[in-house]
Formats: sequence, structure tokens, C-alpha cells
Amino acid sequence: MKTLPLDLGERSYPIYIGSGLLGQGDLLKRHIAGSRVAIVTNATVAPLYLAKVREHLGALQPVEVILPDGEEHKTLEILNRIFDALLAARCDRRTTLIALGGGVIGDMAGFAAASYQRGVPFIQVPTTLLSQVDSSVGGKTGVNHPLGKNMIGAFYQPRAVIIDTDTLNTLPDREFASGLAEVIKYGLIRDPEFFAWLEANLDKLLARDAEALAYAIHRSCRNKAEVVAADERESGVRATLNLGHTFGHAIETGLGYGEWLHGEAIAAGMVMAADLSRRLGWLTAAETARIEKLIRRARLPVRAPGSLSPARFLELMAVDKKVLDGRLRLVLLKHLGEAVVTDACPRAELEATLASMREAA
Amino acid sequence: MKTLPLDLGERSYPIYIGSGLLGQGDLLKRHIAGSRVAIVTNATVAPLYLAKVREHLGALQPVEVILPDGEEHKTLEILNRIFDALLAARCDRRTTLIALGGGVIGDMAGFAAASYQRGVPFIQVPTTLLSQVDSSVGGKTGVNHPLGKNMIGAFYQPRAVIIDTDTLNTLPDREFASGLAEVIKYGLIRDPEFFAWLEANLDKLLARDAEALAYAIHRSCRNKAEVVAADERESGVRATLNLGHTFGHAIETGLGYGEWLHGEAIAAGMVMAADLSRRLGWLTAAETARIEKLIRRARLPVRAPGSLSPARFLELMAVDKKVLDGRLRLVLLKHLGEAVVTDACPRAELEATLASMREAA
Repeated sequence: MKTLPLDLGERSYPIYIGSGLLGQGDLLKRHIAGSRVAIVTNATVAPLYLAKVREHLGALQPVEVILPDGEEHKTLEILNRIFDALLAARCDRRTTLIALGGGVIGDMAGFAAASYQRGVPFIQVPTTLLSQVDSSVGGKTGVNHPLGKNMIGAFYQPRAVIIDTDTLNTLPDREFASGLAEVIKYGLIRDPEFFAWLEANLDKLLARDAEALAYAIHRSCRNKAEVVAADERESGVRATLNLGHTFGHAIETGLGYGEWLHGEAIAAGMVMAADLSRRLGWLTAAETARIEKLIRRARLPVRAPGSLSPARFLELMAVDKKVLDGRLRLVLLKHLGEAVVTDACPRAELEATLASMREAA
Repeated sequence: MKTLPLDLGERSYPIYIGSGLLGQGDLLKRHIAGSRVAIVTNATVAPLYLAKVREHLGALQPVEVILPDGEEHKTLEILNRIFDALLAARCDRRTTLIALGGGVIGDMAGFAAASYQRGVPFIQVPTTLLSQVDSSVGGKTGVNHPLGKNMIGAFYQPRAVIIDTDTLNTLPDREFASGLAEVIKYGLIRDPEFFAWLEANLDKLLARDAEALAYAIHRSCRNKAEVVAADERESGVRATLNLGHTFGHAIETGLGYGEWLHGEAIAAGMVMAADLSRRLGWLTAAETARIEKLIRRARLPVRAPGSLSPARFLELMAVDKKVLDGRLRLVLLKHLGEAVVTDACPRAELEATLASMREAA
């Protein structure tokens, strides 16, 4: 087991990464405050891992909240089911919430923890690659709104993140690939050496080689932890973690949640950001080709869906959180391994990217 | 105009108190960050004061969200209307929310500000006595749940609180009295000199004498600001501000929101807390008589509704936020002017208070 610290002053917490961690009950118990516990999970994950977590909690008799699986259920309405369950069980403000599942569960349980009685402790136990390398670390929580993704939420840090790499053994291929998109992102925005490592080791990752996976997850979390420690509330450098996300959120919202997986939309969005960066003279054609090739090898889409017209795309991008004072801010690549946030992207270049980087309709 | 600072480090803000402040546009504008503004108000307050606030914002063209009036609308569902409006108007994360109204509006707009895009700035412009002396100061925001009051929310501080005492001229008598309950509370929990002042000046307040009102509001806010500065997140002394609230919330929830006003329920709750404090040997009979007399003179209830049985009352109290690890914590009075939080109240004494402090059914 490796332990990574996320340094946020009095809100600091450890990230544990290793094989078989769900079997180590003391790890979980160490971070439970108070005498009550509630586990929030979904209908897919519950049959796989809920009993394993419950087993360690014994006398604590956890409240169990099982939500429907899928991004389309990441709503204020479904969130309310968590509050219903906590209140029906008379959970007080010292109840610890455990998020057991992927990014949707982590985001919803985290926002429920932030809001229940104005804040109770919570622990992230991510069970998908995407949530292990991205959403479980850093305290972003929230739900979607029909008009935009993650529009309602809170910055709220967990007490600990417990990543059991064994949970990836049950992850469907498409979801696994979706997680790889965020892994590749760290190489693109700040870790060119890791990008080269990924080019050399992608086949091992796709074969779910345990050692390669543990390395990639640890290095991804380290990148994420460094960025979050430097800028918890995204007033600066943290925004670079959104590479591909303005494009990607537009795809997710435009198609309807759940049509494309988050990582799939981000993958296409990163290729679009790379294309736009090339048009601005920042990336070479060879670099964009390397990026597109690696993402394609990871079995991820490299073009936006043909059903979204450039005009609709622009409309969808304008409600993204990355818009400030009405100007569109984008994360682009100055070099392979260096991201910048800019609000000075010429509209013509953006439209050229939107027009050319689509699948045939 | 008087300015009171609320000292919370980097989250510090000013509380402005005075006559005609809604007419001073620079006061509002000084605290608006970014180039967009949204005003959240209700159908009762909008015809009275919305134009006055809008007038100063001119070119900023505020988004206006007018919610139905009343505690029964303080729900997650109605909260969502604020998000709908902000997203439909494409408000970005630098939009400033202005809460124009009473406690319900302040709590909902504040929670919307805490949650919209994970946090946007907001300004409190309270228009009722209760919100001016209590809920607008200190950053408690949230909505109710059918199983409990204020169960979903956030600690989220405004950028400023602007209290125009002229708005009390349009406040109905019953709501005015409801605000007096919280004014009296400060005397009871930590300011015995203020309690004596209230005994001497209550008739002036009831006649809405401008000078007496300004004094009472300022002194109440000063008490609140001192307590909040010492304990922002209610891990200690801030809990004493909840005198009467565990009883009061049980009344509000038991009767259904909106049946009794918040201050009315708190008033009866404070008399119940005083009675229980007397049974524990802390208050003298003479002191409880003074407390009950002042609250009665303020035209507030001094008994719980007869329709709530002691058994039902106990059940309702057990889901209050003041319950920790399954033990009931109550705010009681050690002396007139000194509150304590205790989880060691004998059940027999509590039941004696519940049985005796009811209206005839």
C-alpha cells in the first residue's frame, strides 16, 4: 500500500492506494468520526462490494443508501434520497458518509455530506478507474442540472480516499477506457514524462497489468494532489485540470447524460483542444498526432459526435462554468505537457476546430 | 448609519444598519464582484422593494427570481427555481446573488449562492426584524426537509449585510413580534443588561420607535457577530444561539411549516427551556416569571401547542441537529443572561416540562 498526502492545511487528508484495501477494515474505521455511518452506493456496485465494507463496520450498523446507477441519475432529486434515508434513520451531524462507487456516487455522496446538517464527515472509496484517478481526489462534489453539468455543488474535502485497485477487475472495458482519458490528461497538462511512459505502457494498462495500473493511478493522484494543494478552489492553476472538459461537457449535455461516458467525452474534448492549440501555433502537427494516437489506442473517441452542429456546440459551451464575465475561457496546450487557460482564443479558430473535429453525422 | 464588523479572517464582512440604506446604491455596488447580479426575493417583498434595489443596478440588468412567500416553500424543489433562473440567464460563477427579503429568502438565496457552480458571492438585504437580528448574520443557509428543519444547507458567509430599518414599517405585527423573540434571546443567553433594557423599552419597540429599534437591532447584531466570530461552525459556543430552538423546531415540524412563525415557536421554546432550567435548580421561579412575562408582553406564545403530545414532541426532538451520537443536547439557562449546552438533562425533568408547558388541547 502507498499513502499519498493531500496537503490542504487543516483539511489535509491521505490517499491510500493498493491491492486488497477493502479487506483492511482498520483503514476505514480510522477515519470514521462519531458513532454512526452511512454507506452511499449504487445498484451495480452494491452486489460486488457492499458486504465487504459492511463487514468491517460491525457494531456501527451502517445506514445503506443504494441509488440507481448512471450519470443521468446525478440530479438534485436523486440526491434527496440520501437525505431521506439519513433523516429516516435519525442520523445526527456526526454521522460519517462513505461513498462507495464511481464518480457519480462520489460526487453525490460528497455533496450530500457537504449539505447534510450543513456538513458531516465523509470518506471516498472509489471503485472505477476514473474516480480513482480524478473525481475522488480534490473535494469537488455536486449534481447536474438539465442546463449544465455539475452546476450545483460544493468544494468539500473527504477525510480520506481509499483506492483498492482490485475493484478494477470488475470494471467493464468501456468504463475502464473512460478512466484512461483522465490518466492521459495528466501527461498532457503537466507531466510529459508520464505521457511518454503511457505511450510505452498502454498495452499493459489495457491488459490490466496490476503493477502498471498501480503505477499509473499513483502518478495520476500525485499530479492531482499537487494541483489541488496549490489551488483548492480553482482560482488559478486547478483550471488546467479541465483540459477537454469545456468541449466534453458540451458533448455530454448535448447528447443527454449517459449517452457518452464522461471520459469518452473528455477524450474527444482533449483531441479538440489539441487541434485548436495547433491552429494557434502552439502544438506541432506531430504532437497532435501523438496525442490523437494515444487516445485512439486507449479505445476512446477522438471526434465529437456528428449529431452536434458547431452552432449547437457553441451554445452549449457558453453555459459551462469556465465562462467568466461572458467570455469563453478554454484550457489549451502551449506544449505537450504544459496547459494554459486562455480567454483570447479567436472565434474563427474555435469554429474551425468545431467544424473539422466531428464524426460524420 | 452604523457599521459593525463581523471578524472571520478572510471571510470577514461588514453589517450596515440604518434608515434609508436601500436608497444608497453605492453601498450595494461596493460589494458586487463580477459584472452580473441576480436578486432573489419573494412575491410579498418584490412589490415593496424590488424596484428600489433594481434602480441602483442600472446597467447591470439583474436577473430577478421571485419565489412564493412562506416557510412552507423553503424546500429543495423551490431552491431549484433559483438554479433554473441563473442557468437560463447563463449566469457565470462571478455572478453576485442578492437576498432581498426575510429569513426564508436569505437562507435559500444563501444556499443557492453556496451551491451554484460550487459557490458565488452573495449579499444579504434582510427586510424583516427576525432576519435583521438573526438569520442574515453568520452564514447559516439552507432549506427544510419534511423530516426536519434546516436539515440541508451550508455554512456560507455573505460579502455584506445591509439592514435598512425603514423596511420594518411595512412588516405585519405578527412577523414583527416573531423577530422580537430572537432579540429577547440575546438578553437571555449572554446580555442580561440588554434583557433589562428590553423590559424597560419593550413598549417603544412595539410602537416601532425608530431610535429604540435601531438600538435593539444593533445590539442584537453585535451579540450575534461576537458569537459567530468565536465559533463560526458551531462546534462550541455558537450552539447557545439555539436557545429554545430544539423545542421550537419540534413545534414547527410537528404543526407543519408556516402554521406558527419561526419566532413564535422559538418564543414558546425559550419559555420551555427556562422552565426546564428552573426544574434543574438553575433559574429561580422569579427569573422564569420575568422571562415569561417579557415574552408574553411581546405578544408571543409562551406555551407549546396543545395538539402536540409530549410523546410526539420527544420523537420530533430526536431528529434535531442538536442531537449528537443519539444523546439529546439542549441549550438551557444557568442564569438569566448565561446559557449552557448540556446533554445531561434527566428525562423525567424534560417530560415534566413537556407535560406542563402546553396550551389546553
